[in-house]
This record gives sequence, structure tokens and C-alpha cells, in this order.
Amino acid sequence: MDELTQLKEEKKRLEKILDFGHKISTQILDLDELLKLLMQEVREILNADRCTVFIRDFEKDILWSRIADGLADKKITLPVGKGIVGAVAKEGKILNIKDAYADERFNRETDKKTGYCTKTILSCPLKNKDGEVIGVFQVLNKKNGVFDEEDEKILTLLARQAADAIENAFLYEEQRKMFESFIETLSVALDRRDTITAGHSKRVTYFSIKLGEKLNLSKKELELLKYASWMHDLGKIGVREAILTKNGRLTDEEYEAIKKHAVFTKEILEKIYFKKEFREIPLIASSHHENYDGTGYPLKISGTQIPFLARIIAICDVFDAITSHRHYRKPMPILKVLSIFKEEKGKKFDATCVDAFFKISLYDIITGINLDKVQNFVILEDDKKVLAQYTLEDLWRFLKGDFPTPSQKEVVNVFLKYYGK
Amino acid sequence: MDELTQLKEEKKRLEKILDFGHKISTQILDLDELLKLLMQEVREILNADRCTVFIRDFEKDILWSRIADGLADKKITLPVGKGIVGAVAKEGKILNIKDAYADERFNRETDKKTGYCTKTILSCPLKNKDGEVIGVFQVLNKKNGVFDEEDEKILTLLARQAADAIENAFLYEEQRKMFESFIETLSVALDRRDTITAGHSKRVTYFSIKLGEKLNLSKKELELLKYASWMHDLGKIGVREAILTKNGRLTDEEYEAIKKHAVFTKEILEKIYFKKEFREIPLIASSHHENYDGTGYPLKISGTQIPFLARIIAICDVFDAITSHRHYRKPMPILKVLSIFKEEKGKKFDATCVDAFFKISLYDIITGINLDKVQNFVILEDDKKVLAQYTLEDLWRFLKGDFPTPSQKEVVNVFLKYYGK
Repeated sequence: MDELTQLKEEKKRLEKILDFGHKISTQILDLDELLKLLMQEVREILNADRCTVFIRDFEKDILWSRIADGLADKKITLPVGKGIVGAVAKEGKILNIKDAYADERFNRETDKKTGYCTKTILSCPLKNKDGEVIGVFQVLNKKNGVFDEEDEKILTLLARQAADAIENAFLYEEQRKMFESFIETLSVALDRRDTITAGHSKRVTYFSIKLGEKLNLSKKELELLKYASWMHDLGKIGVREAILTKNGRLTDEEYEAIKKHAVFTKEILEKIYFKKEFREIPLIASSHHENYDGTGYPLKISGTQIPFLARIIAICDVFDAITSHRHYRKPMPILKVLSIFKEEKGKKFDATCVDAFFKISLYDIITGINLDKVQNFVILEDDKKVLAQYTLEDLWRFLKGDFPTPSQKEVVNVFLKYYGK
Repeated sequence: MDELTQLKEEKKRLEKILDFGHKISTQILDLDELLKLLMQEVREILNADRCTVFIRDFEKDILWSRIADGLADKKITLPVGKGIVGAVAKEGKILNIKDAYADERFNRETDKKTGYCTKTILSCPLKNKDGEVIGVFQVLNKKNGVFDEEDEKILTLLARQAADAIENAFLYEEQRKMFESFIETLSVALDRRDTITAGHSKRVTYFSIKLGEKLNLSKKELELLKYASWMHDLGKIGVREAILTKNGRLTDEEYEAIKKHAVFTKEILEKIYFKKEFREIPLIASSHHENYDGTGYPLKISGTQIPFLARIIAICDVFDAITSHRHYRKPMPILKVLSIFKEEKGKKFDATCVDAFFKISLYDIITGINLDKVQNFVILEDDKKVLAQYTLEDLWRFLKGDFPTPSQKEVVNVFLKYYGK
């Protein structure tokens, strides 16, 4: 190749790398998506058959990859120092293997398991700004021939950009985790003030998301829904403890004081700085006691005046209230629970949301109800299969049917075995 | 220039742009630092005399720049649509002005004010992935000749990378703001449960940071200190309201129950996911009632066993408790307050921290004490100057001196005018 042609090639290559950098740095939001994109882009640029990104877990001293194309969606891990990828992580240097099976470091087990045939490997460390190896690129089987020096140069430059993007995604993820665990911890702490409803916020959030999924909400809407339902009872912090935990019947005045929590939720949340997409959270969270027919509180708004996501939370809030344990009563019989929602569909509750609620699988319902008992709560594998197959609507049908078949009875029995335990 | 030379130049340029991308994408943490870096790098790469980044504020429809080199550290703003930069923001197209004073859009006012002489301008929009203009690069006075087509190409590519980095910095910043406002809002809400100590967490945080600065803590340590002091009383959520707000004398049992809040703070905070740099927060926050001589609680640890940052919070916690208003008493006379710290220096409190505490300016002390009354609290300009000049140590000296000079008496009087209002 003459100098001119070579320079042209190199220029083209640099332009590709620049484009790569641009593409991946607009993907900060989600580490999983970023990793997928990285693998796909690197594979294409290097004209290879496969590419996997491994991320280093410093605490466990392992490398993991969540999405290896070809290996479906599972997480694979390997120790730092072992195999080709492990060696790259340890040494921090690029490795170009022209014949995998001739290299003693190569682990043939994965090929055996997957039926894949690894021939050539180009593996390059991902280093952060302190020079630490935070991950490894593994590129397999160049489509024509072996990986050359040129490929090594390209991958090194791609790796530098990829490392920057991964670091940023981590920072962002860490920040998000902090924020979420803070909300979680506080809702737990608040629930504890009002011991009667411990775990309530968490369960309502769980059901809301399941219901939102049945309504085909977007990822962004689901996120909004998650935060709003998590914090819907935050205003209880403003209600006097003596009233909140009173054992006997509430006076009218006390009941009014408790109802104030919806307004307090709004007041508190309005003081929080939410990014644009989350600005509706105070309104949504504080409208969870509004009824579709206008008989709720605090604003007595009705129908479409009530934020859609608040109509979802309203259903899940009531569902959790009547299905969860109280020290003074057992959970309500499930037939009665379901009857209430069927009865109030289009009245107290939005009809669309109620219909979607009945589409939730029995497995998700049972999991949600027992969410705060993960420690000693196990669903048997066989039962799991049964519960995952049927929905609340099915359960309702089986319970109401005059002549339930043995298999219908069986489904009901499996459900009751875990309901309210 | 022949093709070969040109290609070589272009290759070099692309490599520079790649390096630029790498440099700026490891700067996600701080928008200010990122902007500074952007301006400096772009100026060098384009061989220009100046470079300014303008950021668009969509709500106000203006462009702002916090740090324009040459204009020191102030924030300048200009409306979208006006001037060269405004035009670029509006049209979303690069502008290459070979003679600024011949262009009618050029605003000569800035030159007049600063004495600078603008000749050539290259101004390029910063677009996010949706194509929206989120900012503008303004590059002034190419060092040799005018900006050419080549410069336009380079700036366009730099702008693309800069826009990515700025967007990421924004996302990160938004997330941080959310997290902080959440802590803030909750500490306010918790303070309200215990109406006696409203605003306490906020003031303790303020004093802690001032004290930390006097101790020359690093930026990271100050951030850690900020969060730990903000949340030091979070555990009060676990103390029964009746005890927390009891008006009369507490029984031994009740006092023990209140002391539990330190342990609760730890328990709650330990459930929060903190990123690595913040892992010590639970321990620091929950040690604010430990005394240097081992007479505190909950662990009765002493000296260097107590985290250093907790020793800072301990001082600020007591200072706020005795200087703030209670409905049943006035704030303690300042001489007595200061005597307590002088007396307990090296006993209850870490001596180094007490010494640093006395270095805080009277202006900062007065501001901190009145922190939750910003609405109707104003310090007169003249008084501000006086208070900023003297420290708590000075005040102590003036108060204790047998023959205070008139100017010393004046300082004391100005202080007392704002103390405990």
C-alpha cells in the first residue's frame, strides 16, 4: 500500500473512531444499553464475528459480562488473571491471538458449551483515567484473516473512549442508586412510624409497576410511576403519631388530620428539585386518594383530571391496604377483594386501569404481597409455574364459576397457599 | 498543498480532536471545570486568542457564560437571537466573521467595557442528540490571519464532542441536585416533627462546612462532611414523638430513648447505598454525640477513635443547640457560649477543631445562626464589612478584655445586633 492510500485509510479509521465516541457518549443513561452498543459497534468496526465487554468488579476481583451476544442474556463471570481476558485484565496489555487453540491460556470450555469455534482473539484492556483496568474488550474471529497491527491500534483507541463512557455510566448509576436507596430507606423508616402499614410503600410501588407494564407504559413513564408511588405516603411524616397509630375508632377530626397526609406529600415533594421528566411527581403522588368519580380527596377532582399515573397508584394503594396483614385482622378474603375492584370499576377506579390490573399474573401478585418477607418466603418451583400462567382475571373467573374444574380448583388452592402468609 | 501533506494535516487534526474528546469526557463531575477546560482546549487547538462557551437556559431563553477568560469570574448573559452568538444559537449554524466591526450583528459594547479588540470570530452551535442548540462556542481572534474552512470543520467536530460532555455533566448535576434537595427536604420535614429544633440540621451543616474550610479540608472531605452533618439527626425519625416534643423534664428512661437517635441514624444510613467516597457517612453522622474524652454516646469512644469529621459536627451541633431560640428560653449569652467551648477544648471537644472553630468569621456565624430566616433577615452592608473582618476568637478577646477600645465595643455591638434575632 502506498503512503497516500495508507493515509486515506488511516483518516477514514480516525473518523470512524470519532463517530464511535459520539455515539457512545450519548448513552450515559443506561450501562446495559451502553455495553450492548459498545459490543455491536466494535464488532462492526473491526469486522469481527463477536465482541464482548467484560467489566471488572474490584471487590470480588472478577470480570463479568451481562450480555454476550450469542450467549443470550445471562451474566458470565471469570476471575482476573485466568484465561485470555483475565490475563489482559491483569497485565493491562493488549493481546492478539492468531490461533486460540494453540494458546495455553485459552479456555476451551465456553466453546464446548456453546458450540462456537474461536479462532482469532483480539483482547484489549479498558483503562480509566488513573490507568486502572476497569474492563476488557474481547473481539473474536476476524471475518477475513487475522487481527493485524492496524486492528490493535483501532481497538486501543476505541477502548479509551469506551472506558470514558463506562466510567461516566458508573458514576451516574452510583448516583441513581444513592438517590433510590435513600427514598427506599426513608419510606421504610416512615412505614415504621406507622407500624400498621410497614412495607406498604414498597408493595404499592411493586404493584404499580406491574400494572404500568400491563398498560404498556414507556420506560420513562414507569420510572416516573416508580418514584411517585414510592413516595405517595411521604406526607405521613406531617401527621401526629398519636393519630397515625391510634388503635381505636378515629374521630371525624382525627380522620381529617390523617387525610391531610396527601396534601403534605405534595408540599414536601414540591420542595424537592426534580429533573424535568420528574416534575409531575408531587401532583401524581399526592393524588392517590382521588377517586375517578370525584368522591376522593384532597381536591375531589375526577376522571381525566386525575393524573393517569395517580389512578394506577390509587388501585394499588387500596389493593395493598385490604390484602395486607393487620395485627387486628386477617387479610380480606381474595374473592371479596376482587369483587370490590370489579364493583368499583368505572366508579371509584379508572376502568382501563382496573382491567389492566386483572391482567397481572398470580405469581406477581403473590410476590408483591410477600415482598417484605423475602427472608423466609419461598414459592415452590411447581407452584411458581402454575401461578405465572394465570392472571387475577382467571382467578376471579375460577372463584365465581359455578362448576370449577379440578385444575381450576388447583390453581385457586395454590394461590391461597401463599396469599396472606 | 499537495494531497499527501493535506492528508497528513487532516490526520493530525483528527488525532487532536480524539485527544480532546478523551480529555473532556473524564471531566463529567463538574460543569464549571468542564467549561474551563473546553475553552482552554479549543483556544489552543484553533490557535486563537480567546474562547468562550455559552450555555443555553431554555426557560429564560438566554445564553450564559460563567467563566469568560479575560472577563474574570463573573456570569454574563445575552438573549438568544441577539449578537453573533445569539444568532448562532437561533439559527443553529456556524458563523465565520472575518471582520467583526464590519458585521452589523456584532455588539461593540463588550469590547468597550473590557478594552479588548475583537477582529475575527468563529462561532459554532453546540447541539445535543436531538439537534437542539444547547450552547455556543465563540472563538475570537485567530493568531495568524482569519479562521478558514479547515477551522470550521475542526470546531464543528469539537463542538459535537463538547456538547456530549456538557449534556452528561448536566445529567449528573441534575441527579445530584435531586439527591441533595431530597435530603434537604426531609431534614426540614423531620425538623418539623420536633418543632423545637426546626432548621437545626441545615445550620449544623452550614457551620460544619465553615469549620471544615478553616481546617483546610479537601473538596471531597467537605462533601462528605456536608452529607454527614445534614443527616446526623435522621435517627430522630425512630424516636417517639411524645418524647421528642415533651415540654417538661425528661425521665431517665425518656432521656435514654432520645439518646437512641444516634444509633437509629446509623441504622438508617447503613441501609442507604453510598458510593465509595461516602461509605463512612453512617459512622460519622452517628458519632456526633461522642465526646473527645469518651464521655459521650452511643459507643463512648474517645480521641482519635472518633471520626475526625464527627468531631467537627459535635462542636457545631452543640453550638447550634445553645445559640438557637427555644420557645421557653432566649439564646444563651454569647460570652457564655464561647466560654463553654474554651472550657471544653481538649475535654469534650477536639482542641484542633475548637481552635479552627474560633477562626470562623463573625459574618459566617451570624449568617449561619439566621439561616432559616433568609426571608426577613438582612445584614446592612456596613455591618457586613465589620463582621467579615473579625473572628469568634476576636469576639472572645473583646468580650474578655478589661479595657475594650471603642472600636472593639463597636464590633461586639454589631454582633449582638444580629445575634439571636
